[in-house]
Amino acid sequence: MKLATYTANGQTRTGIVVGDAIIDSGVAGTMIDLIRDWDHHKGDLEKKAAAGGGVPLTSVRLEAPVQRPGKIFAIGLNYADHIVESKMETPQRQVWFTKAQTSVNGPYDDIEIAKGTMTNDYEVELVAIIGKGGKHVSADDAAGTIFGYCVGNDVTERMWQHGGPQWSLGKSFDTHAPMGPWIVTADEVDDPHSLGLRCFVNGEQRQSSNTEHLVFNIWSQIEHLSVGMTLEPGDCLFTGTPGGVGAAMDPRQFLQPGDIVRCEIDGLGHIEGTMVAEV
Amino acid sequence: MKLATYTANGQTRTGIVVGDAIIDSGVAGTMIDLIRDWDHHKGDLEKKAAAGGGVPLTSVRLEAPVQRPGKIFAIGLNYADHIVESKMETPQRQVWFTKAQTSVNGPYDDIEIAKGTMTNDYEVELVAIIGKGGKHVSADDAAGTIFGYCVGNDVTERMWQHGGPQWSLGKSFDTHAPMGPWIVTADEVDDPHSLGLRCFVNGEQRQSSNTEHLVFNIWSQIEHLSVGMTLEPGDCLFTGTPGGVGAAMDPRQFLQPGDIVRCEIDGLGHIEGTMVAEV
Repeated sequence: MKLATYTANGQTRTGIVVGDAIIDSGVAGTMIDLIRDWDHHKGDLEKKAAAGGGVPLTSVRLEAPVQRPGKIFAIGLNYADHIVESKMETPQRQVWFTKAQTSVNGPYDDIEIAKGTMTNDYEVELVAIIGKGGKHVSADDAAGTIFGYCVGNDVTERMWQHGGPQWSLGKSFDTHAPMGPWIVTADEVDDPHSLGLRCFVNGEQRQSSNTEHLVFNIWSQIEHLSVGMTLEPGDCLFTGTPGGVGAAMDPRQFLQPGDIVRCEIDGLGHIEGTMVAEV
Repeated sequence: MKLATYTANGQTRTGIVVGDAIIDSGVAGTMIDLIRDWDHHKGDLEKKAAAGGGVPLTSVRLEAPVQRPGKIFAIGLNYADHIVESKMETPQRQVWFTKAQTSVNGPYDDIEIAKGTMTNDYEVELVAIIGKGGKHVSADDAAGTIFGYCVGNDVTERMWQHGGPQWSLGKSFDTHAPMGPWIVTADEVDDPHSLGLRCFVNGEQRQSSNTEHLVFNIWSQIEHLSVGMTLEPGDCLFTGTPGGVGAAMDPRQFLQPGDIVRCEIDGLGHIEGTMVAEV
Protein backbone atom coordinates (compact mmCIF):
# COMPACT_ATOMS: atom_id res chain seq x y z
CA MET A 1 0.00 0.00 0.00
CA LYS A 2 1.10 3.58 -0.64
CA LEU A 3 0.23 5.96 2.17
CA ALA A 4 0.55 9.71 1.93
CA THR A 5 -0.09 12.80 4.01
CA TYR A 6 -1.84 15.44 1.93
CA THR A 7 -3.62 18.75 2.14
CA ALA A 8 -6.87 19.46 0.32
CA ASN A 9 -9.48 22.12 1.04
CA GLY A 10 -7.31 23.47 3.83
CA GLN A 11 -7.25 20.18 5.73
CA THR A 12 -4.26 17.89 6.17
CA ARG A 13 -5.00 14.19 6.45
CA THR A 14 -3.68 10.77 5.49
CA GLY A 15 -4.66 8.91 2.35
CA ILE A 16 -4.08 5.86 0.22
CA VAL A 17 -2.47 6.37 -3.20
CA VAL A 18 -3.94 4.14 -5.91
CA GLY A 19 -2.68 4.87 -9.40
CA ASP A 20 -3.21 8.56 -10.06
CA ALA A 21 -5.76 8.98 -7.29
CA ILE A 22 -5.64 9.49 -3.55
CA ILE A 23 -8.34 8.13 -1.25
CA ASP A 24 -8.96 9.64 2.19
CA SER A 25 -7.94 7.06 4.80
CA GLY A 26 -10.69 8.22 7.13
CA VAL A 27 -8.26 7.69 10.03
CA ALA A 28 -8.26 10.55 12.53
CA GLY A 29 -4.93 12.13 13.37
CA THR A 30 -1.55 12.06 11.70
CA MET A 31 0.44 9.39 9.92
CA ILE A 32 2.04 8.53 13.25
CA ASP A 33 -1.41 7.72 14.67
CA LEU A 34 -2.15 5.58 11.62
CA ILE A 35 1.15 3.73 11.94
CA ARG A 36 0.69 3.18 15.67
CA ASP A 37 -2.72 1.57 15.11
CA TRP A 38 -1.84 -0.12 11.82
CA ASP A 39 -3.05 -3.57 12.86
CA HIS A 40 -6.44 -2.03 13.59
CA HIS A 41 -6.69 0.05 10.39
CA LYS A 42 -5.03 -2.20 7.83
CA GLY A 43 -8.04 -4.30 6.79
CA ASP A 44 -10.29 -1.28 6.42
CA LEU A 45 -7.72 0.59 4.32
CA GLU A 46 -7.23 -2.41 2.05
CA LYS A 47 -10.96 -2.43 1.40
CA LYS A 48 -10.93 1.30 0.66
CA ALA A 49 -8.01 0.88 -1.74
CA ALA A 50 -9.82 -1.95 -3.56
CA ALA A 51 -13.02 0.06 -3.84
CA GLY A 52 -11.19 2.84 -5.65
CA GLY A 53 -12.48 6.38 -6.07
CA GLY A 54 -10.83 9.30 -4.33
CA VAL A 55 -9.57 12.45 -6.04
CA PRO A 56 -6.79 13.03 -8.56
CA LEU A 57 -3.34 13.19 -6.95
CA THR A 58 -2.74 16.35 -8.98
CA SER A 59 -5.59 18.08 -7.15
CA VAL A 60 -3.97 17.82 -3.70
CA ARG A 61 -0.76 18.97 -2.10
CA LEU A 62 1.42 16.10 -0.95
CA GLU A 63 3.17 16.70 2.38
CA ALA A 64 6.02 14.79 3.96
CA PRO A 65 4.48 11.43 4.88
CA VAL A 66 5.48 11.93 8.52
CA GLN A 67 5.42 15.64 9.22
CA ARG A 68 6.69 15.56 12.79
CA PRO A 69 8.77 12.45 13.38
CA GLY A 70 9.71 11.94 17.01
CA LYS A 71 13.26 11.16 15.89
CA ILE A 72 15.18 11.47 12.64
CA PHE A 73 18.49 9.65 12.75
CA ALA A 74 20.79 9.55 9.73
CA ILE A 75 23.87 7.43 9.14
CA GLY A 76 27.01 8.95 7.66
CA LEU A 77 29.69 7.35 5.50
CA ASN A 78 27.61 4.34 4.57
CA TYR A 79 28.45 3.82 0.86
CA ALA A 80 32.04 2.99 -0.11
CA ASP A 81 32.18 5.51 -2.98
CA HIS A 82 30.91 8.33 -0.74
CA ILE A 83 33.53 7.46 1.89
CA VAL A 84 36.28 7.70 -0.71
CA GLU A 85 35.06 11.01 -2.14
CA SER A 86 34.73 12.40 1.40
CA LYS A 87 38.39 11.46 2.02
CA MET A 88 37.34 9.57 5.16
CA GLU A 89 38.16 6.11 6.53
CA THR A 90 35.55 3.37 6.44
CA PRO A 91 34.13 3.56 9.95
CA GLN A 92 34.46 0.54 12.23
CA ARG A 93 31.26 1.53 14.01
CA GLN A 94 28.14 3.13 12.60
CA VAL A 95 28.29 6.94 12.56
CA TRP A 96 24.93 8.53 13.33
CA PHE A 97 23.80 12.13 13.45
CA THR A 98 20.32 13.67 13.56
CA LYS A 99 18.07 15.97 11.60
CA ALA A 100 15.66 18.23 13.50
CA GLN A 101 11.91 17.68 13.32
CA THR A 102 11.64 21.22 11.97
CA SER A 103 13.76 20.33 8.94
CA VAL A 104 11.04 18.10 7.46
CA ASN A 105 9.83 19.28 4.05
CA GLY A 106 7.21 18.15 1.57
CA PRO A 107 8.25 16.07 -1.46
CA TYR A 108 7.75 18.88 -3.99
CA ASP A 109 8.27 21.89 -1.73
CA ASP A 110 10.94 24.50 -2.22
CA ILE A 111 14.19 23.96 -0.34
CA GLU A 112 15.59 27.02 1.38
CA ILE A 113 19.10 28.35 1.17
CA ALA A 114 19.28 30.06 4.56
CA LYS A 115 20.43 33.68 4.61
CA GLY A 116 24.19 33.91 4.70
CA THR A 117 24.84 30.30 3.65
CA MET A 118 26.43 29.24 0.38
CA THR A 119 27.33 25.56 0.66
CA ASN A 120 24.03 23.70 0.39
CA ASP A 121 24.29 20.16 -0.95
CA TYR A 122 22.03 17.21 -1.81
CA GLU A 123 22.16 13.58 -0.63
CA VAL A 124 19.62 11.08 -1.96
CA GLU A 125 18.79 8.41 0.64
CA LEU A 126 16.45 5.54 1.25
CA VAL A 127 14.40 6.41 4.34
CA ALA A 128 13.05 3.64 6.57
CA ILE A 129 10.00 4.54 8.63
CA ILE A 130 9.61 2.70 11.90
CA GLY A 131 6.38 0.83 12.59
CA LYS A 132 6.26 -1.20 15.79
CA GLY A 133 9.76 -0.15 16.77
CA GLY A 134 11.16 -1.33 20.05
CA LYS A 135 14.42 -1.63 21.96
CA HIS A 136 17.20 -4.22 21.74
CA VAL A 137 15.96 -5.35 18.35
CA SER A 138 18.30 -7.92 16.81
CA ALA A 139 19.25 -7.66 13.14
CA ASP A 140 17.26 -10.85 12.59
CA ASP A 141 14.11 -9.22 13.92
CA ALA A 142 14.69 -5.74 12.47
CA ALA A 143 12.56 -6.13 9.34
CA GLY A 144 9.50 -6.58 11.53
CA THR A 145 9.96 -3.16 13.11
CA ILE A 146 9.79 -1.25 9.82
CA PHE A 147 6.50 0.16 8.58
CA GLY A 148 7.68 1.20 5.14
CA TYR A 149 10.06 3.19 2.99
CA CYS A 150 10.21 6.48 1.14
CA VAL A 151 12.65 8.71 -0.72
CA GLY A 152 14.60 11.30 1.25
CA ASN A 153 17.02 14.09 0.50
CA ASP A 154 19.47 14.68 3.37
CA VAL A 155 20.06 18.29 2.39
CA THR A 156 23.19 19.55 4.09
CA GLU A 157 24.76 22.94 4.73
CA ARG A 158 28.41 21.86 4.35
CA MET A 159 30.07 24.80 6.08
CA TRP A 160 27.79 24.33 9.07
CA GLN A 161 28.33 20.56 8.96
CA HIS A 162 32.10 20.82 8.92
CA GLY A 163 32.59 24.15 10.77
CA GLY A 164 33.00 22.02 13.89
CA PRO A 165 33.18 18.36 14.88
CA GLN A 166 29.44 17.69 15.19
CA TRP A 167 27.19 17.42 12.14
CA SER A 168 23.63 17.49 13.51
CA LEU A 169 23.11 21.26 13.35
CA GLY A 170 24.40 21.57 9.76
CA LYS A 171 22.00 18.75 8.85
CA SER A 172 18.98 20.35 10.54
CA PHE A 173 18.24 23.56 8.68
CA ASP A 174 14.59 24.31 7.93
CA THR A 175 13.32 22.49 4.80
CA HIS A 176 16.46 20.30 4.66
CA ALA A 177 14.68 16.98 5.10
CA PRO A 178 12.38 16.60 2.09
CA MET A 179 10.68 13.20 2.18
CA GLY A 180 8.09 11.38 0.16
CA PRO A 181 6.25 11.29 -2.05
CA TRP A 182 4.51 8.63 0.07
CA ILE A 183 5.35 5.61 2.21
CA VAL A 184 5.42 2.28 0.41
CA THR A 185 4.60 -0.27 3.10
CA ALA A 186 7.32 -2.81 3.78
CA ASP A 187 5.28 -5.75 2.44
CA GLU A 188 5.41 -4.16 -1.04
CA VAL A 189 9.20 -3.71 -1.04
CA ASP A 190 10.68 -7.06 -2.02
CA ASP A 191 14.20 -6.25 -0.90
CA PRO A 192 15.15 -2.84 0.51
CA HIS A 193 18.79 -3.79 -0.07
CA SER A 194 18.37 -3.98 -3.82
CA LEU A 195 16.97 -0.60 -4.83
CA GLY A 196 18.51 1.75 -7.34
CA LEU A 197 18.65 5.36 -6.14
CA ARG A 198 19.56 8.47 -8.10
CA CYS A 199 19.85 12.23 -7.67
CA PHE A 200 19.63 14.79 -10.48
CA VAL A 201 20.34 18.52 -10.43
CA ASN A 202 18.65 20.37 -13.28
CA GLY A 203 18.35 17.04 -15.09
CA GLU A 204 22.02 16.16 -14.76
CA GLN A 205 22.61 12.87 -12.94
CA ARG A 206 24.85 13.44 -9.91
CA GLN A 207 24.31 10.31 -7.84
CA SER A 208 23.43 6.79 -8.96
CA SER A 209 23.88 3.69 -6.86
CA ASN A 210 21.98 0.83 -5.30
CA THR A 211 21.16 0.08 -1.68
CA GLU A 212 23.00 -3.24 -2.13
CA HIS A 213 26.14 -1.15 -1.55
CA LEU A 214 25.23 -0.03 1.97
CA VAL A 215 28.20 -0.57 4.31
CA PHE A 216 25.90 -1.20 7.30
CA ASN A 217 22.59 -2.58 6.12
CA ILE A 218 19.24 -1.49 7.49
CA TRP A 219 18.85 -4.47 9.81
CA SER A 220 22.19 -3.79 11.49
CA GLN A 221 21.30 -0.08 11.68
CA ILE A 222 18.18 -0.89 13.68
CA GLU A 223 20.07 -3.30 15.93
CA HIS A 224 22.68 -0.62 16.63
CA LEU A 225 20.26 2.25 17.29
CA SER A 226 17.97 0.22 19.52
CA VAL A 227 20.67 -0.76 21.99
CA GLY A 228 20.10 2.53 23.78
CA MET A 229 17.00 4.08 22.27
CA THR A 230 13.43 2.90 21.95
CA LEU A 231 12.44 3.24 18.31
CA GLU A 232 8.88 4.46 17.94
CA PRO A 233 6.19 4.55 15.25
CA GLY A 234 7.01 7.20 12.66
CA ASP A 235 10.66 7.59 13.57
CA CYS A 236 12.66 8.09 10.37
CA LEU A 237 16.04 6.59 9.53
CA PHE A 238 18.05 8.08 6.67
CA THR A 239 20.11 5.09 5.62
CA GLY A 240 23.08 6.77 3.93
CA THR A 241 23.98 8.48 0.66
CA PRO A 242 26.15 7.21 -2.19
CA GLY A 243 28.97 9.06 -3.95
CA GLY A 244 28.42 12.08 -6.15
CA VAL A 245 27.66 14.90 -3.74
CA GLY A 246 28.41 18.44 -4.87
CA ALA A 247 31.02 19.01 -2.17
CA ALA A 248 33.14 16.22 -3.69
CA MET A 249 33.01 17.48 -7.29
CA ASP A 250 36.01 19.19 -8.84
CA PRO A 251 35.41 22.08 -8.74
CA ARG A 252 32.88 21.94 -5.90
CA GLN A 253 29.32 22.59 -6.94
CA PHE A 254 26.89 23.82 -4.35
CA LEU A 255 23.19 24.32 -4.91
CA GLN A 256 22.12 27.72 -6.19
CA PRO A 257 18.74 29.45 -6.19
CA GLY A 258 16.65 28.06 -9.03
CA ASP A 259 18.36 24.66 -9.08
CA ILE A 260 15.93 21.76 -9.25
CA VAL A 261 16.92 18.71 -7.22
CA ARG A 262 15.24 15.41 -8.00
CA CYS A 263 15.77 12.26 -5.95
CA GLU A 264 14.31 8.93 -7.02
CA ILE A 265 14.37 5.34 -5.80
CA ASP A 266 13.19 2.26 -7.70
CA GLY A 267 9.61 1.46 -6.79
CA LEU A 268 9.24 4.33 -4.33
CA GLY A 269 8.79 7.25 -6.72
CA HIS A 270 10.57 10.58 -6.70
CA ILE A 271 10.72 13.86 -4.85
CA GLU A 272 11.74 17.14 -6.46
CA GLY A 273 12.36 20.55 -4.96
CA THR A 274 13.53 23.93 -6.20
CA MET A 275 16.27 25.71 -4.31
CA VAL A 276 15.19 29.19 -3.21
CA ALA A 277 17.03 31.90 -1.35
CA GLU A 278 15.49 32.58 2.04
CA VAL A 279 13.93 36.03 2.11
CA MET B 1 5.76 31.42 38.10
CA LYS B 2 6.74 27.78 38.49
CA LEU B 3 5.05 25.47 35.99
CA ALA B 4 5.16 21.71 36.17
CA THR B 5 3.84 18.68 34.35
CA TYR B 6 2.47 16.14 36.80
CA THR B 7 0.47 12.98 37.05
CA ALA B 8 -2.27 12.48 39.61
CA ASN B 9 -5.15 10.01 39.57
CA GLY B 10 -3.82 8.55 36.36
CA GLN B 11 -4.00 11.82 34.46
CA THR B 12 -1.06 13.90 33.30
CA ARG B 13 -1.60 17.65 33.16
CA THR B 14 0.14 20.97 33.76
CA GLY B 15 0.08 22.86 37.02
CA ILE B 16 1.37 25.85 38.94
CA VAL B 17 3.71 25.19 41.84
CA VAL B 18 3.09 27.50 44.83
CA GLY B 19 5.11 26.66 47.90
CA ASP B 20 4.52 23.00 48.70
CA ALA B 21 1.34 22.77 46.64
CA ILE B 22 0.52 22.29 42.99
CA ILE B 23 -2.56 23.85 41.39
CA ASP B 24 -4.08 22.41 38.21
CA SER B 25 -3.56 24.95 35.42
CA GLY B 26 -6.86 24.02 33.84
CA VAL B 27 -5.19 24.41 30.43
CA ALA B 28 -5.98 21.58 28.02
CA GLY B 29 -3.06 19.77 26.42
CA THR B 30 0.61 19.59 27.21
CA MET B 31 3.17 22.10 28.45
CA ILE B 32 3.96 22.88 24.82
CA ASP B 33 0.34 23.94 24.25
CA LEU B 34 0.48 26.09 27.38
CA ILE B 35 3.73 27.72 26.27
CA ARG B 36 2.41 28.32 22.74
CA ASP B 37 -0.63 30.19 24.09
CA TRP B 38 1.12 31.75 27.06
CA ASP B 39 -0.05 35.31 26.34
CA HIS B 40 -3.61 34.02 26.46
CA HIS B 41 -3.22 31.92 29.63
CA LYS B 42 -0.85 34.01 31.70
CA GLY B 43 -3.36 36.31 33.44
CA ASP B 44 -5.66 33.44 34.36
CA LEU B 45 -2.79 31.39 35.77
CA GLU B 46 -1.55 34.33 37.83
CA LYS B 47 -5.01 34.58 39.38
CA LYS B 48 -5.05 30.85 40.10
CA ALA B 49 -1.63 31.06 41.72
CA ALA B 50 -2.73 33.99 43.90
CA ALA B 51 -5.92 32.18 44.96
CA GLY B 52 -3.87 29.27 46.30
CA GLY B 53 -5.27 25.85 47.07
CA GLY B 54 -4.28 22.83 45.03
CA VAL B 55 -2.88 19.59 46.38
CA PRO B 56 0.39 18.80 48.15
CA LEU B 57 3.31 18.41 45.76
CA THR B 58 4.18 15.21 47.61
CA SER B 59 0.86 13.70 46.53
CA VAL B 60 1.61 13.88 42.80
CA ARG B 61 4.25 12.52 40.48
CA LEU B 62 6.28 15.25 38.81
CA GLU B 63 7.12 14.56 35.17
CA ALA B 64 9.64 16.29 32.92
CA PRO B 65 8.14 19.77 32.38
CA VAL B 66 8.20 19.22 28.61
CA GLN B 67 7.73 15.52 27.98
CA ARG B 68 8.09 15.54 24.21
CA PRO B 69 10.17 18.51 23.11
CA GLY B 70 10.26 18.98 19.34
CA LYS B 71 14.00 19.54 19.58
CA ILE B 72 16.61 19.04 22.27
CA PHE B 73 19.93 20.64 21.35
CA ALA B 74 22.88 20.56 23.72
CA ILE B 75 26.15 22.47 23.51
CA GLY B 76 29.45 20.72 24.19
CA LEU B 77 32.68 22.10 25.62
CA ASN B 78 31.09 25.24 27.01
CA TYR B 79 32.83 25.68 30.40
CA ALA B 80 36.61 26.26 30.47
CA ASP B 81 37.25 23.70 33.22
CA HIS B 82 35.31 21.00 31.39
CA ILE B 83 37.25 21.70 28.19
CA VAL B 84 40.54 21.26 30.07
CA GLU B 85 39.49 18.03 31.77
CA SER B 86 38.22 16.71 28.42
CA LYS B 87 41.66 17.41 26.92
CA MET B 88 40.02 19.38 24.12
CA GLU B 89 40.70 22.77 22.56
CA THR B 90 38.39 25.70 23.27
CA PRO B 91 36.14 25.64 20.20
CA GLN B 92 36.11 28.65 17.90
CA ARG B 93 32.53 27.88 16.96
CA GLN B 94 29.76 26.49 19.09
CA VAL B 95 29.65 22.67 19.13
CA TRP B 96 26.09 21.31 19.20
CA PHE B 97 24.72 17.82 19.39
CA THR B 98 21.24 16.52 20.14
CA LYS B 99 19.37 14.35 22.60
CA ALA B 100 16.42 12.29 21.36
CA GLN B 101 12.88 13.09 22.43
CA THR B 102 12.70 9.55 23.84
CA SER B 103 15.55 10.27 26.28
CA VAL B 104 13.42 12.67 28.35
CA ASN B 105 13.00 11.55 31.96
CA GLY B 106 11.13 12.84 34.99
CA PRO B 107 13.00 14.83 37.66
CA TYR B 108 12.94 12.03 40.26
CA ASP B 109 12.71 9.02 37.96
CA ASP B 110 15.24 6.22 37.83
CA ILE B 111 17.97 6.56 35.20
CA GLU B 112 18.69 3.41 33.22
CA ILE B 113 22.05 1.85 32.58
CA ALA B 114 21.29 0.16 29.27
CA LYS B 115 22.14 -3.53 28.97
CA GLY B 116 25.75 -4.00 27.97
CA THR B 117 26.88 -0.46 28.82
CA MET B 118 29.30 0.45 31.59
CA THR B 119 30.33 4.07 31.05
CA ASN B 120 27.33 6.15 32.08
CA ASP B 121 28.15 9.65 33.30
CA TYR B 122 26.37 12.75 34.67
CA GLU B 123 26.47 16.36 33.46
CA VAL B 124 24.49 19.01 35.34
CA GLU B 125 23.24 21.75 33.01
CA LEU B 126 21.00 24.78 32.95
CA VAL B 127 18.22 24.08 30.46
CA ALA B 128 16.57 26.96 28.60
CA ILE B 129 13.05 26.29 27.35
CA ILE B 130 11.99 28.17 24.25
CA GLY B 131 8.83 30.28 24.33
CA LYS B 132 8.08 32.34 21.26
CA GLY B 133 11.16 31.05 19.48
CA GLY B 134 11.80 32.18 15.92
CA LYS B 135 14.50 32.25 13.29
CA HIS B 136 17.44 34.64 12.81
CA VAL B 137 17.14 35.83 16.40
CA SER B 138 19.93 38.23 17.31
CA ALA B 139 21.72 37.87 20.63
CA ASP B 140 20.14 41.20 21.62
CA ASP B 141 16.65 39.77 21.10
CA ALA B 142 17.34 36.27 22.40
CA ALA B 143 16.08 36.77 25.95
CA GLY B 144 12.61 37.44 24.56
CA THR B 145 12.45 34.00 22.95
CA ILE B 146 12.95 32.08 26.20
CA PHE B 147 9.97 30.89 28.21
CA GLY B 148 11.88 29.75 31.26
CA TYR B 149 14.55 27.58 32.79
CA CYS B 150 14.93 24.29 34.59
CA VAL B 151 17.60 21.87 35.80
CA GLY B 152 18.83 19.17 33.44
CA ASN B 153 21.18 16.21 33.61
CA ASP B 154 22.80 15.49 30.25
CA VAL B 155 23.37 11.83 31.09
CA THR B 156 25.90 10.37 28.69
CA GLU B 157 27.03 6.89 27.70
CA ARG B 158 30.72 7.72 27.17
CA MET B 159 31.72 4.67 25.14
CA TRP B 160 28.81 5.33 22.77
CA GLN B 161 29.63 9.06 22.71
CA HIS B 162 33.27 8.53 21.84
CA GLY B 163 33.07 5.20 19.95
CA GLY B 164 32.83 7.32 16.81
CA PRO B 165 33.02 10.96 15.78
CA GLN B 166 29.37 11.88 16.39
CA TRP B 167 27.97 12.30 19.89
CA SER B 168 24.19 12.47 19.43
CA LEU B 169 23.46 8.74 19.75
CA GLY B 170 25.56 8.32 22.91
CA LYS B 171 23.63 11.28 24.35
CA SER B 172 20.21 9.90 23.45
CA PHE B 173 19.73 6.74 25.47
CA ASP B 174 16.33 6.24 27.07
CA THR B 175 15.97 8.12 30.41
CA HIS B 176 19.19 10.08 29.77
CA ALA B 177 17.59 13.53 29.74
CA PRO B 178 16.12 14.04 33.22
CA MET B 179 14.68 17.54 33.53
CA GLY B 180 12.76 19.53 36.08
CA PRO B 181 11.54 19.72 38.68
CA TRP B 182 9.53 22.50 37.00
CA ILE B 183 10.02 25.48 34.71
CA VAL B 184 10.75 28.78 36.41
CA THR B 185 9.49 31.40 33.99
CA ALA B 186 12.13 33.75 32.63
CA ASP B 187 10.67 36.81 34.40
CA GLU B 188 11.55 35.19 37.75
CA VAL B 189 15.17 34.49 36.85
CA ASP B 190 17.07 37.73 37.42
CA ASP B 191 20.15 36.70 35.47
CA PRO B 192 20.49 33.22 33.91
CA HIS B 193 24.22 33.94 33.58
CA SER B 194 24.73 34.11 37.31
CA LEU B 195 23.39 30.83 38.67
CA GLY B 196 25.35 28.36 40.75
CA LEU B 197 24.95 24.75 39.61
CA ARG B 198 26.09 21.57 41.30
CA CYS B 199 26.00 17.83 40.85
CA PHE B 200 26.32 15.26 43.64
CA VAL B 201 26.72 11.48 43.45
CA ASN B 202 25.66 9.73 46.64
CA GLY B 203 26.03 13.04 48.43
CA GLU B 204 29.60 13.68 47.22
CA GLN B 205 29.93 16.93 45.29
CA ARG B 206 31.31 16.24 41.81
CA GLN B 207 30.51 19.42 39.90
CA SER B 208 30.16 22.98 41.17
CA SER B 209 30.30 26.05 38.99
CA ASN B 210 28.27 29.05 37.93
CA THR B 211 26.66 29.89 34.60
CA GLU B 212 28.76 33.06 34.55
CA HIS B 213 31.53 30.78 33.27
CA LEU B 214 29.72 29.75 30.06
CA VAL B 215 32.07 30.11 27.09
CA PHE B 216 29.17 30.92 24.75
CA ASN B 217 26.34 32.51 26.68
CA ILE B 218 22.68 31.66 26.17
CA TRP B 219 21.95 34.68 23.98
CA SER B 220 24.72 33.79 21.55
CA GLN B 221 23.57 30.16 21.61
CA ILE B 222 20.12 31.19 20.42
CA GLU B 223 21.56 33.48 17.76
CA HIS B 224 23.72 30.65 16.46
CA LEU B 225 21.05 27.95 16.44
CA SER B 226 18.42 30.14 14.82
CA VAL B 227 20.50 30.96 11.74
CA GLY B 228 19.29 27.74 10.19
CA MET B 229 16.56 26.39 12.42
CA THR B 230 13.26 27.80 13.58
CA LEU B 231 13.15 27.50 17.36
CA GLU B 232 9.72 26.52 18.57
CA PRO B 233 7.75 26.59 21.84
CA GLY B 234 8.99 23.88 24.18
CA ASP B 235 12.29 23.25 22.42
CA CYS B 236 14.96 22.59 25.06
CA LEU B 237 18.53 23.84 25.03
CA PHE B 238 21.07 22.18 27.33
CA THR B 239 23.53 25.02 27.82
CA GLY B 240 26.68 23.12 28.76
CA THR B 241 28.24 21.34 31.72
CA PRO B 242 31.13 22.43 33.96
CA GLY B 243 34.15 20.38 34.99
CA GLY B 244 33.95 17.39 37.27
CA VAL B 245 32.44 14.65 35.14
CA GLY B 246 33.21 11.06 36.10
CA ALA B 247 35.04 10.34 32.85
CA ALA B 248 37.65 12.96 33.78
CA MET B 249 38.31 11.69 37.32
CA ASP B 250 41.48 9.76 38.11
CA PRO B 251 40.66 6.93 38.18
CA ARG B 252 37.55 7.27 36.05
CA GLN B 253 34.30 6.83 37.93
CA PHE B 254 31.24 5.81 36.01
CA LEU B 255 27.76 5.55 37.45
CA GLN B 256 26.82 2.21 38.99
CA PRO B 257 23.42 0.71 39.82
CA GLY B 258 22.17 2.23 43.05
CA ASP B 259 24.09 5.50 42.67
CA ILE B 260 21.96 8.55 43.40
CA VAL B 261 22.63 11.55 41.17
CA ARG B 262 21.41 14.95 42.31
CA CYS B 263 21.64 18.08 40.16
CA GLU B 264 20.72 21.48 41.51
CA ILE B 265 20.72 25.07 40.30
CA ASP B 266 20.24 28.20 42.40
CA GLY B 267 16.61 29.26 42.37
CA LEU B 268 15.45 26.44 40.12
CA GLY B 269 15.42 23.53 42.57
CA HIS B 270 16.91 20.10 42.13
CA ILE B 271 16.38 16.82 40.34
CA GLU B 272 17.54 13.48 41.68
CA GLY B 273 17.54 10.04 40.11
CA THR B 274 18.74 6.59 41.06
CA MET B 275 20.82 4.63 38.56
CA VAL B 276 19.27 1.25 37.79
CA ALA B 277 20.42 -1.56 35.56
CA GLU B 278 18.06 -2.12 32.65
CA VAL B 279 16.30 -5.45 33.01
